Amino acid sequence: MSRPPFQFTIGSELQRLIAAVGPADEAAMQRARQRQAQLTKPAGSLGALEEISIRLAGVFGTPQPHPRGMAVIVAAGDHGVVAEGVSAYPPEVTPAMVANFLAETPWGRGGAAVNALARAVGARVYLADVGVDAELPAHPGLLGTKVRRGTRNLRREAALTRPETEAAILAGAALAVRAINEGADLLIPGELGIGNTTSASALTARMLGADVKNVTGRGTGIDDAALERKRQVVSDALARQGSDAADPLGVLADLGGLEIACMLGVMLRAAALRRAVVLDGFVEGSAALVGVALAPALRDFLFAAGECAETGHAAQLAHLGLTPLFRLGLRLGEGTGGVLAAPLLLSAAAALREMRTFAEASVPETGER
Amino acid sequence: MSRPPFQFTIGSELQRLIAAVGPADEAAMQRARQRQAQLTKPAGSLGALEEISIRLAGVFGTPQPHPRGMAVIVAAGDHGVVAEGVSAYPPEVTPAMVANFLAETPWGRGGAAVNALARAVGARVYLADVGVDAELPAHPGLLGTKVRRGTRNLRREAALTRPETEAAILAGAALAVRAINEGADLLIPGELGIGNTTSASALTARMLGADVKNVTGRGTGIDDAALERKRQVVSDALARQGSDAADPLGVLADLGGLEIACMLGVMLRAAALRRAVVLDGFVEGSAALVGVALAPALRDFLFAAGECAETGHAAQLAHLGLTPLFRLGLRLGEGTGGVLAAPLLLSAAAALREMRTFAEASVPETGER
Repeated sequence: MSRPPFQFTIGSELQRLIAAVGPADEAAMQRARQRQAQLTKPAGSLGALEEISIRLAGVFGTPQPHPRGMAVIVAAGDHGVVAEGVSAYPPEVTPAMVANFLAETPWGRGGAAVNALARAVGARVYLADVGVDAELPAHPGLLGTKVRRGTRNLRREAALTRPETEAAILAGAALAVRAINEGADLLIPGELGIGNTTSASALTARMLGADVKNVTGRGTGIDDAALERKRQVVSDALARQGSDAADPLGVLADLGGLEIACMLGVMLRAAALRRAVVLDGFVEGSAALVGVALAPALRDFLFAAGECAETGHAAQLAHLGLTPLFRLGLRLGEGTGGVLAAPLLLSAAAALREMRTFAEASVPETGER
Repeated sequence: MSRPPFQFTIGSELQRLIAAVGPADEAAMQRARQRQAQLTKPAGSLGALEEISIRLAGVFGTPQPHPRGMAVIVAAGDHGVVAEGVSAYPPEVTPAMVANFLAETPWGRGGAAVNALARAVGARVYLADVGVDAELPAHPGLLGTKVRRGTRNLRREAALTRPETEAAILAGAALAVRAINEGADLLIPGELGIGNTTSASALTARMLGADVKNVTGRGTGIDDAALERKRQVVSDALARQGSDAADPLGVLADLGGLEIACMLGVMLRAAALRRAVVLDGFVEGSAALVGVALAPALRDFLFAAGECAETGHAAQLAHLGLTPLFRLGLRLGEGTGGVLAAPLLLSAAAALREMRTFAEASVPETGER
């Protein structure tokens, strides 16, 4: 397998984006840690929220972080590999779900899960057609960034070319800029695309060097026979030896999806602009694996939502060094888990920012301990 | 041990309150279950949120429940048992924390954890002095329902008389009415009171017939020696044989706290008025154990927040038949876990209420499964 030099394989705009991802602000985290220890509560009694608040201090560069807007950016794309019978749903579901996202309902725009959840918590929803295999009618709520109509069948050939992959990443980066300009401090990449857990499994297997069976699950809910078929498809894709984990963009082109590349772009630009990224599930996690391989500091900006029910998500989170906030058994995608988790991040930041210290409140700090 | 007849031991107002707690609306739950199965997502893919949404349908009596306001009602009370050295903090912390709750800060009223978290998610905070062992200055943000200055030392004698206990329960019921009248559909009982995990451990041990060591933990963070002392205190309290689990109000008077009784009143009235109750941690759980013993249907209105870090909380949840939404390692009290969980309940209801069905959205329902 060839390992071409970095600068040869990545366009200059993407190179600049990757280079712009710097580490979290250690000094702010240190001050946040000191502040956290002085707040009017028993030390450690906010559990995992305390470490999250400190990490948010590092993201936003202040010991009293104040993230406000939440935005979920849902990238839609189709997968040539659905021809292999790897999904419980036909590919027509992708454009039908795009229409569902855009439908006017008595509650506002969008009748899909993430629309309802986003309304409940006050998050904005951005929907982008980066690779749906249909000509979708123009709609003010559908951001037009299509790179191509679906990927090629990754069992047989590379899913994408490198230029296609880069274009989808840069489309995601542009979406992140828009969401941030419109007020988002917490960015939630989400996806929509029948067949995309097959792509995510292949990406995860290659990036982690994991056994296919340990990172390939039932997606939208396939039966045993289809699961067997899906695992074979992933194994066949890996057996083509079309890419090498040492070249993460090559892996993404070989085994990825347009919406996965788009989510990667959202993550990289959000990190470069020092915003927090809330990771939903397994498909989002596969994009993050490519992301931290390209820009290790990206990890500092990633926050796991829940551990989703899809096989292999726990392995992704372990590699990323992230602790999930809940285990609700979600396996829906669309960024739904991220939308559910984002208020917990806002709350963690609020506690660090707004609680008074023992000294400010004149509360006796402790008796014995 | 005497087991006096029910009507003899409970005042008529409290009897009416207990009798007003009816079961959840099974018909609404059945219709919600049907609707949930038709929403535009793979069946089961919202995991635990689906069952929560169905339970909320039962609480609110509609297959499309629309809970809105969230209110945390924090009851403050002191405990005579602190004389035994069972807490990491001196009893002066209770009134100092009341003052912290009432302090004006750059962010709004209240510098305690639950104040910050409630602001982050848009929940109202009600603070009630039901039994602080200090004369607190009048304040518009402090609801005056004091029953007495702290409990008696439960190691030596009954903590409360029955009339004191009933008065605290009815004070809580009145607080629930006020919060509901001011818009709350999700009620979160919270507490503040140095020493109250000792009381909660004794209540839990008696109501569940559990071993003291399995339901007695470190509270605010005591060391090994203090934990040993705390367990002995709880064992001594139980050895007095001052109450019997068959008489739940007698147990509450014998081993309880004024803030615990107040939270019980919040729960009972919320359930009677068909609102959902979000249960925070171990002290709240001890009130709920008494509550479901008095009115088994109360259980239908209870939703567990997280599993808190305090020893014995899991045993409470198992008895109540509740599944925690997260395990963040919280052990702060004040209703903080409930405030963090409440948006997840609003989100679960929103998904059930606002998502379109496959038929409405013309999305192909499934291929194979």
